[in-house]
Amino acid sequence: MAHPITPLSPPLKDELDIVIPTIRNLDFLEMWRPFLQPYHLIIVQDGDPTKVIKVPDGFDYELYNRNDVNRVLGPKASCISFKDSACRCFGFLVSKKKYIFTIDDDCFVAKDPSGKEINALAQHIQNLLTPSTPLFFNTLYDPYRDGADFVRGYPFSLREGVSTAISHGLWLNIPDYDAPTQLVKPRERNTSSHRYVDAVMTIPKGTLFPMCGMNLAFDRELIGPAMYFGLMGDGQPIGRYDDMWAGWCAKVICDHLNLGVKTGLPYIWHSKASNPFVNLKKEYKGIYWQEEIIPFFQSIILSKECTTVQQCYVELSKNVKEKLGSVDPYFQKLGDAMVTWIEAWEELNPPKEASAAAEPKSVKKEEASPNSK
Amino acid sequence: MAHPITPLSPPLKDELDIVIPTIRNLDFLEMWRPFLQPYHLIIVQDGDPTKVIKVPDGFDYELYNRNDVNRVLGPKASCISFKDSACRCFGFLVSKKKYIFTIDDDCFVAKDPSGKEINALAQHIQNLLTPSTPLFFNTLYDPYRDGADFVRGYPFSLREGVSTAISHGLWLNIPDYDAPTQLVKPRERNTSSHRYVDAVMTIPKGTLFPMCGMNLAFDRELIGPAMYFGLMGDGQPIGRYDDMWAGWCAKVICDHLNLGVKTGLPYIWHSKASNPFVNLKKEYKGIYWQEEIIPFFQSIILSKECTTVQQCYVELSKNVKEKLGSVDPYFQKLGDAMVTWIEAWEELNPPKEASAAAEPKSVKKEEASPNSK
Repeated sequence: MAHPITPLSPPLKDELDIVIPTIRNLDFLEMWRPFLQPYHLIIVQDGDPTKVIKVPDGFDYELYNRNDVNRVLGPKASCISFKDSACRCFGFLVSKKKYIFTIDDDCFVAKDPSGKEINALAQHIQNLLTPSTPLFFNTLYDPYRDGADFVRGYPFSLREGVSTAISHGLWLNIPDYDAPTQLVKPRERNTSSHRYVDAVMTIPKGTLFPMCGMNLAFDRELIGPAMYFGLMGDGQPIGRYDDMWAGWCAKVICDHLNLGVKTGLPYIWHSKASNPFVNLKKEYKGIYWQEEIIPFFQSIILSKECTTVQQCYVELSKNVKEKLGSVDPYFQKLGDAMVTWIEAWEELNPPKEASAAAEPKSVKKEEASPNSK
Repeated sequence: MAHPITPLSPPLKDELDIVIPTIRNLDFLEMWRPFLQPYHLIIVQDGDPTKVIKVPDGFDYELYNRNDVNRVLGPKASCISFKDSACRCFGFLVSKKKYIFTIDDDCFVAKDPSGKEINALAQHIQNLLTPSTPLFFNTLYDPYRDGADFVRGYPFSLREGVSTAISHGLWLNIPDYDAPTQLVKPRERNTSSHRYVDAVMTIPKGTLFPMCGMNLAFDRELIGPAMYFGLMGDGQPIGRYDDMWAGWCAKVICDHLNLGVKTGLPYIWHSKASNPFVNLKKEYKGIYWQEEIIPFFQSIILSKECTTVQQCYVELSKNVKEKLGSVDPYFQKLGDAMVTWIEAWEELNPPKEASAAAEPKSVKKEEASPNSK
């Protein structure tokens, strides 16, 4: 009763799914209720599938545990990570909506410097529904924001921008640091009064960025097949690079297909610093490997024949095997998993004109029956 | 007496000149006194050289009018614009210091959202003395700022950054809009409470930006010869593109030489919107031409043999004549002026080891006697 009144028509209510990977009861949703309750949730339960995850009353959701993942994908389930938040991309796969917002279960509603609660989803939607400007830098940040514009010297032909595929939000309280930085700066906090940056900006074409999956939204139709979070966690030599991997792949493909990636607002409040010693164990190969992975992604040129995200992604997977395979055999396996992911994507998301006449072998959407409420 | 106490040792006091182009008395300096009085000013008087420009008491300055420019540069004075703020680059030429801060005379001290007066020069100095990160994007903005760092996934080998050559500051109150935008949005204002963005960031490698000369600092040793503001104003078909031209040239050269460009803080308070009708007349060819100029700068590749700013700039001038000469004969003239500028730069700034044995023909620094206080 004390909650703010939800607007009658929340934006994109029927076109957006919220994907949450978790291993625990979703009490954190209570704080989000005024903002997220109108939307449909896809919960991906990681770890022990016999554990019961409680979802607060009143939320509309479907829940998938590992058994569901195996049942829906069959042998292709091998591309979905286990015991790692990388499993969230299964939710991207089974969604039927145009937009996705994904959030971690240790993320709460942040406040802006005036003390007002931030509706993170509304800001992501605004970011996604306005264009990006990857081809030229605007010094006054997002030109489509109210009270802002393009500055003198910005070419008029570029002012329409390009479609926005990804909206990357930030974090107050616990910054998203790697294990070595956590160890060196255990007490560093990002506070609303000191480190709140009131800006949204496009990441320029040709520039890679570290994409964090904690507070992230994207247009599934534009970039969904590139949002694969890789092979991490159980049985893999690496963890905590799931979102980084997706970010590198997605950015390279956005650049190739002339799509935009924005970062900045909205902030969420990140409550819980993960254990830096555990993180170091998960990360150390990634920290080492990324010194070769980054130049690989910086130098990759996708061929002109790749005009869909799927085509780009398959070509990328071949490059991964060829050029990163020598770094570690892991990348051979990852390259194969990238192809499996695309096969799974195409099975569960057949082209619209073809979906009525899907092949008998394919797992149809209806078979992906989740443990919904 | 009411002024805040100036610190005993203002940073870079003997290594930085403040360059101000003007046509009027410099009363605006009164407000800047607490921050700028310890520094040396180079005033470039534009327009009628017989007019007397008053400088508030207590400032240490040298002043050059058009007669001085002609006397110092002789026939090479043709590369310095007249009746346009582009004349400011003459100040860059005659400075003997490592750093330059240049500011317009309609720019005042801004206040941050807490109401505190912003020491713009101190922030520029901090920007210049800390590295830039053009090779990879940091989502938490300037990683060298107090309380900030590199986020998870940022390659460790890139965390040392590169030397910062340029610090581009922003404006509260009147945004730096072109004439068409001024005409369409005559009342738009950038206010401290609404549009203050508390961030400094590196403009990524390969990305061009619209550099505004109103509130700008740079390392003259690293990038000075590229800070030529072109041929604008009296006798030229174009105005208000002086800083844009310098920004495009300088950014391309910074990218080639692995130097950094930062934008964001500090803000100044820009008091006076220029007349949009007059501006439109000055700008209209630039608005049209920039549609060809931008792709030109985006595609230029400087040869590996260019290892100094001067070499880069001379190669750039050849490209301008070859590739933009067909757009308008103006670019032939501009390409020649770019070469003249470099010749003037080398005359007035001979290599340190060679300066003792300068050629008889060269104009020596001592001859550049200004109307100093």
